[in-house]
Amino acid sequence: MATPPTEDQYTILIDEIKDWQLTHGSLIKLVRTEEEHTVLARPIGVSLFPTSFPKARFDEAMKLQPIYNELYAAISSDDKWIYDVLRDLIETEDSLAAILWSIHLKVKENSAHIQPLSLGIFRSDYMLHSSSTSSPPSLKQVEFNTISCAGFAHASIVSALHRHLLMKGAYLPWTESNPSLLDLSSLPQRTDAGSMAWSLQKAHKAYCQALSLAGPVQSTCILIVVQPYNVNIADERPIEYFLWDRGIPTYRVLFGAEFLDRTTLDLGTNTLHYRPALALPTSPPQEVGLVYLRAGYEHAEYDDLGVECRLRIEYSRAIKAPNILGHLATFKKVQQALALPDSDVLLRFLDPTKAAAVAKTFAPLWPLDDSTELGRHARAIATDPDQAGGYVLKPSLEGGGNNVYGDAIPGFLSAHPRERWGDYVLMQRIEPPPARNTLLLPAQGIHQGDVVCELGIWGACLWRGEGGRMEMVFNDTKGHSVRTKAAEVDEMSVVKGWGCFDSLCLIEGDGTLENTESTPQRYQ
Amino acid sequence: MATPPTEDQYTILIDEIKDWQLTHGSLIKLVRTEEEHTVLARPIGVSLFPTSFPKARFDEAMKLQPIYNELYAAISSDDKWIYDVLRDLIETEDSLAAILWSIHLKVKENSAHIQPLSLGIFRSDYMLHSSSTSSPPSLKQVEFNTISCAGFAHASIVSALHRHLLMKGAYLPWTESNPSLLDLSSLPQRTDAGSMAWSLQKAHKAYCQALSLAGPVQSTCILIVVQPYNVNIADERPIEYFLWDRGIPTYRVLFGAEFLDRTTLDLGTNTLHYRPALALPTSPPQEVGLVYLRAGYEHAEYDDLGVECRLRIEYSRAIKAPNILGHLATFKKVQQALALPDSDVLLRFLDPTKAAAVAKTFAPLWPLDDSTELGRHARAIATDPDQAGGYVLKPSLEGGGNNVYGDAIPGFLSAHPRERWGDYVLMQRIEPPPARNTLLLPAQGIHQGDVVCELGIWGACLWRGEGGRMEMVFNDTKGHSVRTKAAEVDEMSVVKGWGCFDSLCLIEGDGTLENTESTPQRYQ
Repeated sequence: MATPPTEDQYTILIDEIKDWQLTHGSLIKLVRTEEEHTVLARPIGVSLFPTSFPKARFDEAMKLQPIYNELYAAISSDDKWIYDVLRDLIETEDSLAAILWSIHLKVKENSAHIQPLSLGIFRSDYMLHSSSTSSPPSLKQVEFNTISCAGFAHASIVSALHRHLLMKGAYLPWTESNPSLLDLSSLPQRTDAGSMAWSLQKAHKAYCQALSLAGPVQSTCILIVVQPYNVNIADERPIEYFLWDRGIPTYRVLFGAEFLDRTTLDLGTNTLHYRPALALPTSPPQEVGLVYLRAGYEHAEYDDLGVECRLRIEYSRAIKAPNILGHLATFKKVQQALALPDSDVLLRFLDPTKAAAVAKTFAPLWPLDDSTELGRHARAIATDPDQAGGYVLKPSLEGGGNNVYGDAIPGFLSAHPRERWGDYVLMQRIEPPPARNTLLLPAQGIHQGDVVCELGIWGACLWRGEGGRMEMVFNDTKGHSVRTKAAEVDEMSVVKGWGCFDSLCLIEGDGTLENTESTPQRYQ
Repeated sequence: MATPPTEDQYTILIDEIKDWQLTHGSLIKLVRTEEEHTVLARPIGVSLFPTSFPKARFDEAMKLQPIYNELYAAISSDDKWIYDVLRDLIETEDSLAAILWSIHLKVKENSAHIQPLSLGIFRSDYMLHSSSTSSPPSLKQVEFNTISCAGFAHASIVSALHRHLLMKGAYLPWTESNPSLLDLSSLPQRTDAGSMAWSLQKAHKAYCQALSLAGPVQSTCILIVVQPYNVNIADERPIEYFLWDRGIPTYRVLFGAEFLDRTTLDLGTNTLHYRPALALPTSPPQEVGLVYLRAGYEHAEYDDLGVECRLRIEYSRAIKAPNILGHLATFKKVQQALALPDSDVLLRFLDPTKAAAVAKTFAPLWPLDDSTELGRHARAIATDPDQAGGYVLKPSLEGGGNNVYGDAIPGFLSAHPRERWGDYVLMQRIEPPPARNTLLLPAQGIHQGDVVCELGIWGACLWRGEGGRMEMVFNDTKGHSVRTKAAEVDEMSVVKGWGCFDSLCLIEGDGTLENTESTPQRYQ
């Protein structure tokens, strides 16, 4: 008979976890506590156990990534299509889409073809969806992120944490109700924190090689453009350290005023130069080969200095990760346009086999404009209190924030001018099969019970693209990250403290609930 | 002309340092903030720059370590000599020495020869001493630590931090006044955090090999015995992780009640068994091959349970790091007895060449009893306000704490019963040559100015010893650590926030001040 773990054993396991996190940089920096000489930090949210996930669906997501990379690289090379899809947003004065598009147009007018190479650091987020307990869950895409994707370093540490706990037998008291926890082989190969940085290294090398065709190779650097008051340094700094360890000068610089202050653009060649903050006054500036954006994705960042900063980045012949079209491709409206039922829009970018594989992961997703029959259909659902419960309303912006969930949708829309409804898309809620875990949530405490997990698959690709043509230079699947939240919470945000990092325990079979008896009981 | 760094450059360098610390576990855990689900931490104190140190003296200290290891292994095998030296302390009822000695006697009576192997994890602390600016500084030993030596993991991270900053050019604004900062080769080979754990691994293997001579090899584990409410997990946990990564089960257990609760001693064989906290009720206990003490060094730990715990450790046939005689060897009275002027006490343990090399590092050190002429001489100095300023009064206990410095000595002694003065030794203050640095002290702020640094050399050795005979199994120098404090502060304690971890910038030559013009000005 299974003996449940004791309260003491829970406490000891949690102590093991907190100490591991403190010693491995699995932390949130509490920037509001920062003084010149010190600052506080605390562990980021993590789960106590890996969450069960069907191996077949994990493998499917990993195999899909190069296709998704190809799709979004192709979209990012096709400004005509992007304009058609985002036209309503772009034509809304002062919207983020309008600002980005105007930057695109200026750059296109003045210096097209300056840098045909673009780097994509992408993350495709999925949840499992089961329409019933008797059918196997399928993979449904929550969103596709093309700018400032976060969580790679954290995911790597948490996956190492769970492996360590498993290896040292710390999960033993829990194995009687979940024997799969005894087996290291059920944990997928862990994501290597350096592998994403290695993609930056390869892109940087491509810039240098292009240089050497044109003339003598110079010393060039990578800029990581970040936001001020950054709580998430533990996810960004490791990239920088990895690149320095490989001899590539890599600097963090703040989006906006600091970027403008420390860089210059050579108007003849569009070469971007950077003056490191910690340099002698006599040190020469360094040529920038790659600008990696971990900032510039929020509307509020685009004051006059923000616009000028982004413009300088785009004007330059540095490779961008992403470039401005890659950024626009992450708007929800793009995801919705790709998911239009019965359309052949995917065939513009992918061959039919790839298109079909990708289309399988689309959740039903509608525009909310009133110019199409689909839009009118979606408006009818979204304003009907009896139907809206099964849906999510998403602003067509980057990132996972600012969604409106279920029953709150009709009220939200009625308080919102009708002519702006088209800024949103309506997505059918994904219904994940029940899973259980215990979560350490810094801001909230310990959650024990039903959870929902979101699988992020990471891709990196470098392409040469312009005027609708795209040629891939490299195209890799880099690893995965897992974020888990309490089932009753709507939004998944680890930094806000509502979710946590997690890892997977892959289970054989198709994940049909009826066939995996132990799943709902585990970790109680 | 040298341009001084700007205020902004200082701030940026400090930000680089804090973020590196957060992402590399260079932290103090703020245990008073601990809640079940979270805990706060902040960077441990570090210096902004490596501190200059003459290479010749560093090399000398490294070469001395195997001799010091041999000396203290021999002392720890000679209970007769230890008793003679510590007699006064041992005969003081309820003193730590008395408690430890009574444990030694009980074990000796009941089960001598149970485990002839002992592991030493030693740290010898030095400061530079210059009697004048025209003579080269010499190496003077501050103390020799044989139990619960801390700082190895921190030292390794800070040395990597300084290398990283140097490599990325972050020290450039400071190089005009100190060109040696430009040269990675002036930083000594960094201490590898795993190398101390590797010594535990070797000792553990020796236990297992002895087992296999006696019968079939069983699975054995290492116990790291720690104090509760431990702020310094960042220095202890990495050892545990390293050993697990090499397949050696390693558990942390609290000194006292928890140790007694989780272990059993087989009275026939004196085999120690441990039941991991995170095990199934049906899991068999594990045999303990090595007990590594990071606790049990303070008098207050020896309540009834503490005594029983230490007794069980000593009774067992696990290898101890250290065993009880090794622990007693760290008492200041031992250091003072070795340093007696014109005595040949060192020749009891070392050959004349080694004895002379070691003796060179002794600072003048006297007993404070009234039974000898030396003691009476020391009492005269210590009670004389005109002379006491140049001395330190040290209780004959483990660790660097509870010293009384200079002018405070006469008052302290007059408030203290005369018959207990013999518990102290009097040491001539070491006068280090001036050095400058900037220190980030979490509890205090930023110190910019004169500093004093203490070099710790780490050794590990395994010996077979009993009844005055000692045979060395292995004897290694493992690396170094550096702690630095403001010159005007007396006590060096990083955990209390008065000192910080540092690394060295080795300078050629003998370190004579007159020959190294830039030293006093650097980093101002």
